[in-house]
Amino acid sequence: MMRWLTAGESHGSGLVGIIEGLPAGIEITTADIQDALLRRRLGYGRGARMKFEKDEVTIISGVRHGITLGSPVAIHIANTEWPKWELVMNPDPVDPEEIEGLARNAALRRPRPGHADMAGMQKFGFDEARPLLERASARETATRVALGRVAQHFLAQLGIRTVAHTVRMGEIEIAPGYDFPTADDVETIDADPLRCIDPEASARMVEAVDTTKKSGETLGGVVEVLVHDAPVGLGSHIHWDRRLDSKLAGALMGIQAMKGVEIGDGFDVATRVGSDAHDAIIRHADGSVARTTHRAGGIEAGMSTGEPIRVRVAMKPIATVPRALATVDVATGQATKAHHQRSDVTAVPASGVVAEAMVALVIAGEVLEKFGGDSVEETRRNMHSFTANIKPI
Amino acid sequence: MMRWLTAGESHGSGLVGIIEGLPAGIEITTADIQDALLRRRLGYGRGARMKFEKDEVTIISGVRHGITLGSPVAIHIANTEWPKWELVMNPDPVDPEEIEGLARNAALRRPRPGHADMAGMQKFGFDEARPLLERASARETATRVALGRVAQHFLAQLGIRTVAHTVRMGEIEIAPGYDFPTADDVETIDADPLRCIDPEASARMVEAVDTTKKSGETLGGVVEVLVHDAPVGLGSHIHWDRRLDSKLAGALMGIQAMKGVEIGDGFDVATRVGSDAHDAIIRHADGSVARTTHRAGGIEAGMSTGEPIRVRVAMKPIATVPRALATVDVATGQATKAHHQRSDVTAVPASGVVAEAMVALVIAGEVLEKFGGDSVEETRRNMHSFTANIKPI
Amino acid sequence: MMRWLTAGESHGSGLVGIIEGLPAGIEITTADIQDALLRRRLGYGRGARMKFEKDEVTIISGVRHGITLGSPVAIHIANTEWPKWELVMNPDPVDPEEIEGLARNAALRRPRPGHADMAGMQKFGFDEARPLLERASARETATRVALGRVAQHFLAQLGIRTVAHTVRMGEIEIAPGYDFPTADDVETIDADPLRCIDPEASARMVEAVDTTKKSGETLGGVVEVLVHDAPVGLGSHIHWDRRLDSKLAGALMGIQAMKGVEIGDGFDVATRVGSDAHDAIIRHADGSVARTTHRAGGIEAGMSTGEPIRVRVAMKPIATVPRALATVDVATGQATKAHHQRSDVTAVPASGVVAEAMVALVIAGEVLEKFGGDSVEETRRNMHSFTANIKPI
Amino acid sequence: MMRWLTAGESHGSGLVGIIEGLPAGIEITTADIQDALLRRRLGYGRGARMKFEKDEVTIISGVRHGITLGSPVAIHIANTEWPKWELVMNPDPVDPEEIEGLARNAALRRPRPGHADMAGMQKFGFDEARPLLERASARETATRVALGRVAQHFLAQLGIRTVAHTVRMGEIEIAPGYDFPTADDVETIDADPLRCIDPEASARMVEAVDTTKKSGETLGGVVEVLVHDAPVGLGSHIHWDRRLDSKLAGALMGIQAMKGVEIGDGFDVATRVGSDAHDAIIRHADGSVARTTHRAGGIEAGMSTGEPIRVRVAMKPIATVPRALATVDVATGQATKAHHQRSDVTAVPASGVVAEAMVALVIAGEVLEKFGGDSVEETRRNMHSFTANIKPI
Repeated sequence: MMRWLTAGESHGSGLVGIIEGLPAGIEITTADIQDALLRRRLGYGRGARMKFEKDEVTIISGVRHGITLGSPVAIHIANTEWPKWELVMNPDPVDPEEIEGLARNAALRRPRPGHADMAGMQKFGFDEARPLLERASARETATRVALGRVAQHFLAQLGIRTVAHTVRMGEIEIAPGYDFPTADDVETIDADPLRCIDPEASARMVEAVDTTKKSGETLGGVVEVLVHDAPVGLGSHIHWDRRLDSKLAGALMGIQAMKGVEIGDGFDVATRVGSDAHDAIIRHADGSVARTTHRAGGIEAGMSTGEPIRVRVAMKPIATVPRALATVDVATGQATKAHHQRSDVTAVPASGVVAEAMVALVIAGEVLEKFGGDSVEETRRNMHSFTANIKPI
Repeated sequence: MMRWLTAGESHGSGLVGIIEGLPAGIEITTADIQDALLRRRLGYGRGARMKFEKDEVTIISGVRHGITLGSPVAIHIANTEWPKWELVMNPDPVDPEEIEGLARNAALRRPRPGHADMAGMQKFGFDEARPLLERASARETATRVALGRVAQHFLAQLGIRTVAHTVRMGEIEIAPGYDFPTADDVETIDADPLRCIDPEASARMVEAVDTTKKSGETLGGVVEVLVHDAPVGLGSHIHWDRRLDSKLAGALMGIQAMKGVEIGDGFDVATRVGSDAHDAIIRHADGSVARTTHRAGGIEAGMSTGEPIRVRVAMKPIATVPRALATVDVATGQATKAHHQRSDVTAVPASGVVAEAMVALVIAGEVLEKFGGDSVEETRRNMHSFTANIKPI
Repeated sequence: MMRWLTAGESHGSGLVGIIEGLPAGIEITTADIQDALLRRRLGYGRGARMKFEKDEVTIISGVRHGITLGSPVAIHIANTEWPKWELVMNPDPVDPEEIEGLARNAALRRPRPGHADMAGMQKFGFDEARPLLERASARETATRVALGRVAQHFLAQLGIRTVAHTVRMGEIEIAPGYDFPTADDVETIDADPLRCIDPEASARMVEAVDTTKKSGETLGGVVEVLVHDAPVGLGSHIHWDRRLDSKLAGALMGIQAMKGVEIGDGFDVATRVGSDAHDAIIRHADGSVARTTHRAGGIEAGMSTGEPIRVRVAMKPIATVPRALATVDVATGQATKAHHQRSDVTAVPASGVVAEAMVALVIAGEVLEKFGGDSVEETRRNMHSFTANIKPI
Repeated sequence: MMRWLTAGESHGSGLVGIIEGLPAGIEITTADIQDALLRRRLGYGRGARMKFEKDEVTIISGVRHGITLGSPVAIHIANTEWPKWELVMNPDPVDPEEIEGLARNAALRRPRPGHADMAGMQKFGFDEARPLLERASARETATRVALGRVAQHFLAQLGIRTVAHTVRMGEIEIAPGYDFPTADDVETIDADPLRCIDPEASARMVEAVDTTKKSGETLGGVVEVLVHDAPVGLGSHIHWDRRLDSKLAGALMGIQAMKGVEIGDGFDVATRVGSDAHDAIIRHADGSVARTTHRAGGIEAGMSTGEPIRVRVAMKPIATVPRALATVDVATGQATKAHHQRSDVTAVPASGVVAEAMVALVIAGEVLEKFGGDSVEETRRNMHSFTANIKPI
């Protein structure tokens, strides 16, 4: 059983994540984590914060000389803007006079639709939104990306690779029938402003972002994650919460701002008849089996089939809309406009990096569930032994 | 923490489910469970099995004189066809001569695409598909519906009601802009052949089922589940796996044959700009707040907002297609057609009943997580106290 | 991850347990479970109920022709006395006139010290003790023993064997310095009236039981469980709740009436100096390592060492003392004597069978955690591969 | 559901713990955590490390201006000795020439009996013990004490208080029949060199430590933890792993070096007859109930009774014995003496502080399980409402 927790407020001193249950022997360095976090900042349409913030990474534990020890891996990401927030977000009591009148400390009483503000104030009993938005912010995904990178290295040492790309920005979709990208395409994808593999679509997406920005709006979209070379048999049909599709859906919908998840052809498959909805089984000359199509997304009955695993997740437009949404001032009861604190037009391209991290974390957990192992070598040996013992047909 | 497990093979002696962590004081009877199971058999397009099978229900534990005791509730659903299967599926060894040549015992070596057959045989090391399909079968959902009914009664005693309906059958969708059905509409919905609230769409869906059947095909679709009068603050933004949307997505994707999940407007919201994607906040005269639209599906930042909770799940067409899909005989390696054992055209209408059960189980768990309580009275008291203490604006 | 739940009231229609996450390929039959349940009835000093009750076992699911399928195993144990209780404990409402005046239905308002009665009534809001004692009764351990037997068969197929024996009855202890019994001794142990390996001590324990009975008292004691041939490396030091000793302690203290748990020499080791408290490491000629003593109980830093695992658990005397304990009538507030419903003098000998089941369940879970596997063959292959890859010294 | 994870190596840059699921509104400051960590260093018989190390505490998240936000609380404890270890324990690869020959980097090939060394090397595939001992070290308990302090503050705000004290050092026990200490006695207890409430026993314990030290030995002992004013009904009889005694046993045995756990009178109760083993129930004039004795440790059938909760845990003597235990050099196969790195004679007094933290974490989790709540105010309201609704007798 692999477990992980994240902690940290958006403007606190830092974020931290702990992942435990990973084997010894994973190769990972601080630079790898930094690289992962840089990728999380990618994408056309981001605002200033993505640029002025830096991610100062410290691997606190679980790794020695670039190799995991089998103990919990903890990663800290410092907030380089902390000096500006130290009074406002200090864990310890501060002199009220010192913070009185500070703009950053002003109570946020105009809850933003689409955010944690309103429901959170009521749930936790706060009379302003700061305590909510500090944790609900997508800044938290930095820890997921950091921990996800460790999972990705583990998987890569087993030959399992992940890749994510943008398939929709607002009304612009990539052309259908594209070849699924592989891990070899990551560099190219990252180089595209929208992390889109279709240059023509990407160009139109850039336009859409520009138009959207001009109109004081924000933009949603869809990203797709693929897992290549995962063995057959991850997840299980025997209980609903062991199904790989259930776990992936929960993990992806657990990302901020996501409103839909699909496995393989997803909702589209619900419009079809049976013979257009499944993947026929064929036999290779070596006695292994494969599929003629990839509609199921590499998952049948909650188990990986050995085909590429493919999932999609839909992100709503950023809720902090520059034009500002209608809300109520909780102090006065007056109708007003919501707080506006951020100027990204869209975070869809970067959300692929987050989604990829979540998928990697799920797959790593499932690999350990099926193959066990306290060292990468042991897990790999068990996985290879399993694969080698599948009877050819 | 509420937990539940289900067990049982499709043609075994019976199915059983255990749910524990529910409070004392829930009103539930055997007849209620039977009624729930009858509803699971609803829907135009089902085959003979739905008719000749009966669900013989026994509440084994946790309920006395129609009221839960606070102890684990176990529900057994006998397989009335067991005498036909007793030799083939006997838990104990049987005389090989007795089962040799029995058609029901024939090894299933032509794995069906879209089922657990192929991946399952490889994962568990079987050389035929029976051990997989017995558990992977949607018959297992009977236990979920049974346990879900207990959860629904618990919720109803707190004033929280659920309803599910069919919104798409293949290419036929209900007309947009419909009023959300409530629990008061369940009877009407159940009376419709497709469990559809739009009579015109329903009529076209019936036609689609007929056409599909004639062509030897099967049909997918989409169902929607609504939760009315759930309090604000179920789920939490503070960790991804506490988010209500994450839990609902995992639960719904954990139903057999599901390939997509949406919260509120789901994938559609990814095509829009920000000001068309969120729900503006308004104030009622009594100081409570509400929303002008219902795009978010009653969930913001992983928390219920107090608005109706609305989710959708997409079901693929039944994989056991009468025309039969291409596969490989695992004994001979020859290309062949997949086994075909069942003749439903679609199970979409009934899947709404299953989806509703899963949603009720999630919501019941979240109610207990937030409000605690070892008796319905205690949970209700805590919930009302919470609601009463929300400060009017 | 292996999970299991039990359900059932003491005088309900039956008990049921579900265990899931076990691999395919475990050999188990109804007769095996019946045998396990018979062993749970062993021991001098039991009352009439142990004799007149029978355990009618049905394996509901997860097993076909004597072999597990990898799906959840559910086992039902019918209550042969159910006809006598059917009105009183019926899950469905009964005609009040029918049960009025039935002795069995009389409200239990004199809560017994040492039982769930008092705390349970207050926790769950009941005004009498039946709803509590029905679930709190040690009858529930029948399901643990049944599921534990499945775990034991799994372990035995891997060469891991368990045995439990009585080391104390009241003030009578077995002679120190005894050789640890092995699985080969189970038959002999079961044949002893107290399940004690020391005939002389056993004779004195019989006397103690007789004396205790005459004086209208009950008797506690201590049982020890050993696990032989478990591999090194079960459990882990890396997080407290992964430690094998933590899991064993939780599992054993989770048995009804247990008040103490020890690993190896336990509390005694706290009275010693360091050089008398640990197990020196030596090397065998083949390069494997072993220990010169067995003080640690085969667990160091929460991990199995490859030596026999040894744990003890202390059972309090049965709380339903014939002489009856002082209590209060919750209806009148008057001081009175507690209900008395049962006449066992001691359940210590049989508790060894329950403790052994709990230990087997923990070890099976840890084996799957470390080695994974969806079939016994896969788990065994991984375990052997691990052992074979330990470098000789 | 409250969850927590800890991370960190003994000589790494720092330790970190995350606890999530706690409500908003707990009052806690950095100084409180520092105070808790200072208490963990208490006790006669500690070596130099306790003095030269300091605990530099940073509350990374979850607390603002001295009040929890409801989001995960993360606490970092820096290793002030890190500069000395930075090369040896660096997470990133270091120049081999730089660490070659460093004494601190020498491979530890003489595994210490009683530690993680031997089993851990085999489990994780290491050829020396450093990767094991770094995590298995009791230094990790600092994070538990830090997180436990947060739990203690939460409990204190609900009126629930904990206290721990030393009841045995080697062969020296405190006099029986002592009055249970309360939270008001903590200051006095902390002031005693052994954290013992019996001055006469304490004096003899000091002597025992001195004698032990002179003989090059180490010393075990037993500590007791009490919880005062916990409400009735924490934990549950309905499933073994919901029992409060099971959870406490698992938590206490999950502390490094613990070999035994008792609830109330524990093992002693197994030597008695029934009428000396339970706590008679009496009625107070106000209709509340109480007990005449405290043998059960405030827990019956896995539920708190409202009486003081009392548990004991037995610690083995420190395994790093100055005289050194016999072992094998894993590089040469030669018999040798184990590594010796530390010079504490005993850690028993301080272990009370750790045990108290673990108990507080368990109780806090159970309070949230029963009463729910997203703010301390909500939890308190629910708890008081529960207590107020218990019917007087």
